[in-house]
Amino acid sequence: MRITIIGSGNVATHMAAAFKNAGHRMVQVYSSTMQNAAMLAYHVGAEAIDDLAAINTETDLFIIAVKDDAIMDVAKQLASYNKLIVHTSGATSISALEIFTSNCGVFYPLQTFSKIRELNFLNVPLCIEGADDDITKQLQQLAQTISNKVYKVSTDQRKILHLAAVFACNFPNYLYHVAEQLLNQNQLDFNIIRPLIDETAQKVQQASPAKVQTGPAVRNDEKTMQAHLELLNNAADLQVIYKLLSQAIIKMDKSE
Amino acid sequence: MRITIIGSGNVATHMAAAFKNAGHRMVQVYSSTMQNAAMLAYHVGAEAIDDLAAINTETDLFIIAVKDDAIMDVAKQLASYNKLIVHTSGATSISALEIFTSNCGVFYPLQTFSKIRELNFLNVPLCIEGADDDITKQLQQLAQTISNKVYKVSTDQRKILHLAAVFACNFPNYLYHVAEQLLNQNQLDFNIIRPLIDETAQKVQQASPAKVQTGPAVRNDEKTMQAHLELLNNAADLQVIYKLLSQAIIKMDKSE
Repeated sequence: MRITIIGSGNVATHMAAAFKNAGHRMVQVYSSTMQNAAMLAYHVGAEAIDDLAAINTETDLFIIAVKDDAIMDVAKQLASYNKLIVHTSGATSISALEIFTSNCGVFYPLQTFSKIRELNFLNVPLCIEGADDDITKQLQQLAQTISNKVYKVSTDQRKILHLAAVFACNFPNYLYHVAEQLLNQNQLDFNIIRPLIDETAQKVQQASPAKVQTGPAVRNDEKTMQAHLELLNNAADLQVIYKLLSQAIIKMDKSE
Repeated sequence: MRITIIGSGNVATHMAAAFKNAGHRMVQVYSSTMQNAAMLAYHVGAEAIDDLAAINTETDLFIIAVKDDAIMDVAKQLASYNKLIVHTSGATSISALEIFTSNCGVFYPLQTFSKIRELNFLNVPLCIEGADDDITKQLQQLAQTISNKVYKVSTDQRKILHLAAVFACNFPNYLYHVAEQLLNQNQLDFNIIRPLIDETAQKVQQASPAKVQTGPAVRNDEKTMQAHLELLNNAADLQVIYKLLSQAIIKMDKSE
């Protein structure tokens, strides 16, 4: 397929590389910053542009991988070419594109991307949605060329996935940061706790999290929780987080 | 070394197996429930006992791997044998043993153990502390026979590690549970989000968490956070958690 990508951020970078590796032709990479466009374009053998007026219409698919707020503006400018247009946003409805064209869909990778980290795209869950059944099928086939984990997901479900990802990724990463701070303040290396972080995530790859919950809260071990709160006496904000999450664990339904 | 283990829970089970595999001789396994003692004892070629009066004094080391509240009671009963005694608790001071004997230490594995899951003990960080330098050295040598990650850690530092482990393990696991609930309530499979959980933990195996924080809060993307809070309209307790952790991320120092 001939593919044009609008954007040069983490999602655009990883997805463009995956398409290139799967044998698709990357036509153009757009970024408002030419240097960013050029870097990614060079990497995937495409032309770099920093002006949407320079779009090459000899393409089959526009992938809009820009900030959520900019999606509609880009879609508006691309709609007149009558090509298939998808966005990659978890939080944005398919209707943000349907306002401008019925030839549209969504191509949402549920993963956390960093430019510094290589990642096997075949393991990245791709959540697709088409404006009609034909488009859905087309996107499904395309998705399967770069990922082994393709899911048909509605806009409403995708918004839930995006929310769940905050709980499953963004919040845990913040808590890792808290752990690192506590260790560093006490002359301990974050390396000591890295295997624990790894194993905690590995355990739920098979099991349900409720079944493998450990720690003082799930045992309702008040003495240990009290001792922990005393250790946090100089960090009132962490005490609040500790109490709130411990209470939630005490109340959780362990049968799930 | 000849080793006697008091306890038959997750820590006792994994540690006894690791010692056995490393060529040590497991003398006895004690549990107040004979069936539990027998199961672990059979597994590691030891004798099972359910009465501390039946202790075999032909041993070099007593490992007390029982609930924190029971450590002192066990230590009191074992002290008269004049053998090296260690406990395995993160939250308990070495002084809980020193009251009864100066021949003591701590052998704290910083990992989350489940009986259902196999685990390579060589990768389990072992935090050791001895009542004096000789004991510390002895425990260090013993620890290195079963783990490649041995750390000398004081009682005060170990308590911090135990607290940090709640933030790095217990709380993230609870948040995985929230994600699973959100998905299940919307006819989505938890499998979709498992690769994200895995990658989030993998990212911080090299990087510092603050450097790889992603999500709406770190971008201060108020529109998305507002949309997420609306999706949680029927879950007031999750809204509170969402707001609190998002505020903490907004305020966090990203330079670390």
